[in-house]
Amino acid sequence: MSRRTRKGRRTKPAAGVLPAGPAYIKRKLSFFDPLDEEQLLKIDEQVDWMLENIGFAFRDDPESLRIWKKAGVKMDGDKIFADAVWVREQCAKAPSEFTQLARNPERTVSIGGNNQVFAPIYGAPFVRDLEGGRRYATFDDFQKLVKLTSMHPNLHHSGLVIAEPTDIPVSKRHLDMVYAHMTLGDKPHLGAITEKSRAQDSVDMAEILHGKDTMDSSVVIMANVNTNSPLLIDRVVSEAIQVYSSRGQAVVITPFILTGAMGPVSTAAAIAQAIAEVMITVAFGQLVKPGAPFVMGNFLSSMSLKSGAPTFGMPEPVLSNYIIGQMARRLGLPLRCGGSLTASKIEDAQAAYESADSMHSTAIAGSHFTLHAAGWLEGGLATGFEKLIMDADRLGSYQKILNGLDLSDDEFARDAYTEVEPGGHFLGSAHTMRHYQTAFYDATLSNSENVESWEEGGSKDMRRRAYEKWNSMLDNYELPAMDPATKEALDDFVARRKHELPDAWY
Amino acid sequence: MSRRTRKGRRTKPAAGVLPAGPAYIKRKLSFFDPLDEEQLLKIDEQVDWMLENIGFAFRDDPESLRIWKKAGVKMDGDKIFADAVWVREQCAKAPSEFTQLARNPERTVSIGGNNQVFAPIYGAPFVRDLEGGRRYATFDDFQKLVKLTSMHPNLHHSGLVIAEPTDIPVSKRHLDMVYAHMTLGDKPHLGAITEKSRAQDSVDMAEILHGKDTMDSSVVIMANVNTNSPLLIDRVVSEAIQVYSSRGQAVVITPFILTGAMGPVSTAAAIAQAIAEVMITVAFGQLVKPGAPFVMGNFLSSMSLKSGAPTFGMPEPVLSNYIIGQMARRLGLPLRCGGSLTASKIEDAQAAYESADSMHSTAIAGSHFTLHAAGWLEGGLATGFEKLIMDADRLGSYQKILNGLDLSDDEFARDAYTEVEPGGHFLGSAHTMRHYQTAFYDATLSNSENVESWEEGGSKDMRRRAYEKWNSMLDNYELPAMDPATKEALDDFVARRKHELPDAWY
Repeated sequence: MSRRTRKGRRTKPAAGVLPAGPAYIKRKLSFFDPLDEEQLLKIDEQVDWMLENIGFAFRDDPESLRIWKKAGVKMDGDKIFADAVWVREQCAKAPSEFTQLARNPERTVSIGGNNQVFAPIYGAPFVRDLEGGRRYATFDDFQKLVKLTSMHPNLHHSGLVIAEPTDIPVSKRHLDMVYAHMTLGDKPHLGAITEKSRAQDSVDMAEILHGKDTMDSSVVIMANVNTNSPLLIDRVVSEAIQVYSSRGQAVVITPFILTGAMGPVSTAAAIAQAIAEVMITVAFGQLVKPGAPFVMGNFLSSMSLKSGAPTFGMPEPVLSNYIIGQMARRLGLPLRCGGSLTASKIEDAQAAYESADSMHSTAIAGSHFTLHAAGWLEGGLATGFEKLIMDADRLGSYQKILNGLDLSDDEFARDAYTEVEPGGHFLGSAHTMRHYQTAFYDATLSNSENVESWEEGGSKDMRRRAYEKWNSMLDNYELPAMDPATKEALDDFVARRKHELPDAWY
Repeated sequence: MSRRTRKGRRTKPAAGVLPAGPAYIKRKLSFFDPLDEEQLLKIDEQVDWMLENIGFAFRDDPESLRIWKKAGVKMDGDKIFADAVWVREQCAKAPSEFTQLARNPERTVSIGGNNQVFAPIYGAPFVRDLEGGRRYATFDDFQKLVKLTSMHPNLHHSGLVIAEPTDIPVSKRHLDMVYAHMTLGDKPHLGAITEKSRAQDSVDMAEILHGKDTMDSSVVIMANVNTNSPLLIDRVVSEAIQVYSSRGQAVVITPFILTGAMGPVSTAAAIAQAIAEVMITVAFGQLVKPGAPFVMGNFLSSMSLKSGAPTFGMPEPVLSNYIIGQMARRLGLPLRCGGSLTASKIEDAQAAYESADSMHSTAIAGSHFTLHAAGWLEGGLATGFEKLIMDADRLGSYQKILNGLDLSDDEFARDAYTEVEPGGHFLGSAHTMRHYQTAFYDATLSNSENVESWEEGGSKDMRRRAYEKWNSMLDNYELPAMDPATKEALDDFVARRKHELPDAWY
């Protein structure tokens, strides 16, 4: 069924199959720290001022207020006014680096430290592809997108809602999505959060997949939740933390701040607000379970001056990526930020310019876990099949950049200079022969032919090439092997829960 | 004739006219220094080894060898083996920052230090536009491209060969090109270099435009020359230096190294080679005139593993931009590197991904003078009318990023937080009202409409929008005023030289 050898390596890749990549990026390139100590302290000061004076509401979840009350933190109604030093102490309890196990041990990732992990788009109700156009996403689309993510060497993590399978009732959708990630691929993935019982179902399925002992000692599933910016942490967040953190699993806390709407219209304020919202939420998580792993999410967007519509890939959030990277390292919390973001409706130059600027800064800034690294179109409303494959192709380039500059003796090629005369060339030098095959990243969707060859080949633009690529990948998809007993247990769980749950479409 | 007031500000911009931008970027964002001292010393050591042991040939220019001989530098035939300490001493004589005057004082630029200057593509024999397709460039195309560059607020410098006017004899082309830059726009520009007399014509025209006294004391024209990598500095370079440097004008020395061909197949070696080639050439320039201003150019490209064709926007040259930025600051020489580079034939997503990664790193790396910042297609073989306008639109974003993060008190918007409740919004807050209009970069070619509005507007992609934009810009072009006596003197000079020169097409 699979072409894998016992050691898990493919004997020979089929046409359309990309060679496997590393499980995640172990960065060697230095970090970019744009702010000096005085500037950092200004942001810290604003964060502390917000924590102590503005306060954050934990709403519609009496249990979360009981937890806060028990901790003796100053409250006013559902608003928490926490001592900033205490909040920082709590955040310091969360690990700066943790491992998320994949069911295939070769795909296990490390999040934090010098590691960087790329995951696809999350949450789009629509999909778009070159032939099929734009449409509501179905479970069939969802499965295809999970397969492509599973196959792509530059995506390390499978995410969760690569697109909303809108043909499945909302009440049951999470079961099919988590099941698809667990069975169609073997990379690490996220669990559901939209309601407490759905979070619990995800955790229960992870326990079936990984076993209770492994889950007791390791992170095997993560959740991604948005605070309700500004200043509000609603029940979805606090309940997800109670489910995931209490079980020692990881939670990504992401304030989505469209500056000017969910935060002030300035980047400095939005960064500080985002950090403060994450910190109070991580502190809450440490009350639920000290040492519970968290990722500091940050998702700032700018807006069009003409219409107020959100914009992406623009300089203000790009700059904030660089700043927030430094702030996260200082705080010692793993970071999620940025992604390949765009407001464009299709995979045109706008989509690529905006995605590249956004993702370039995300990568260099040191985002440890990057959701939306591939596939995002239309401000996140649509997942593009071509966009997924195009972005993922470029992710390989960032991976190479993050490997840093090799300064070993052989890289200086002194022997080659003794072979080549002024005005000559190095094509046949021994050094070139030794290194030729690994010297350059092979961007499979970039065309470097001369114009005549490109025209003879049909003048295909990148979008067309991506369309052909993902179709050919799906033709070559192979289901990764799974222990039959585990699969049966998952099947039974999903069947039982689907039977128990009513059909609900909202 | 112009809508300028006495103070030089437009009273009201016409439709299709973009508001004026700053003359150049005064960077406030910190620099990214990826290498530590030990790593920097390794590259230095390789540079010094090349200077002293490999040597660089100055070919086909006996005068350059006489200059070297007079300086007492070790030679073997036309190869120079210079003491590395001496070369570094010579390079230190070149200024780390200098001013290039424009005929409009408001467009004068400063090159080096914390300043960054963007200029368009240089040297393409073809042009492409959406309706006209790909064709040999004519002088009519050239003039349109100069006008667009002159009008665009995000291009600070006019460059020179925005496209080759192939309908003019090669022997006379330089006169029409320099004349067009001097009269159709008022930004600083480059002069010709392809032959000594053409360089001299450019310098003579600059003297007519700026006056002898100004030229004696200031840089009013620059030249861009390529070494003949590897290890070879041919007559074009050494003669250009003799013409421009002897007159105190600036020269950009740019090794073009397709790694694996004109240099070893590794990035570390290519970077060291490029620096060494520049350093020996700058040292030569200091022998011609101590203190003559130079820009260290660096143009590394990778290649396709399949075909050996050059590739652009790939991780190896992107990484080299970051490294070379640090090396240039260390050397104290102004830097030219990168640009908005791509191997794509058209303005598709490939063109934009590659251009953005290349230009993003160029900007963050601190390239002081960036040729090819806009308009480059097809590995530099074609200038795209749409590409020029699309790239230039994105340059405004880099400009904003390089302004850095404003951390003044008002940016923290404390008053706004006292107005807004948890879960509320900042749209109407006093802080938003105060800052709304200047908060975000306005990317005029990015569409942030919802999909329905975008479809109603004709589903135009960025390429189509750019086509409409540059046509509307040309419709609104206004010839900048020029002193009639100066114009007449330039006209006379060009007429006389055209009469003297034979028609030659190679």
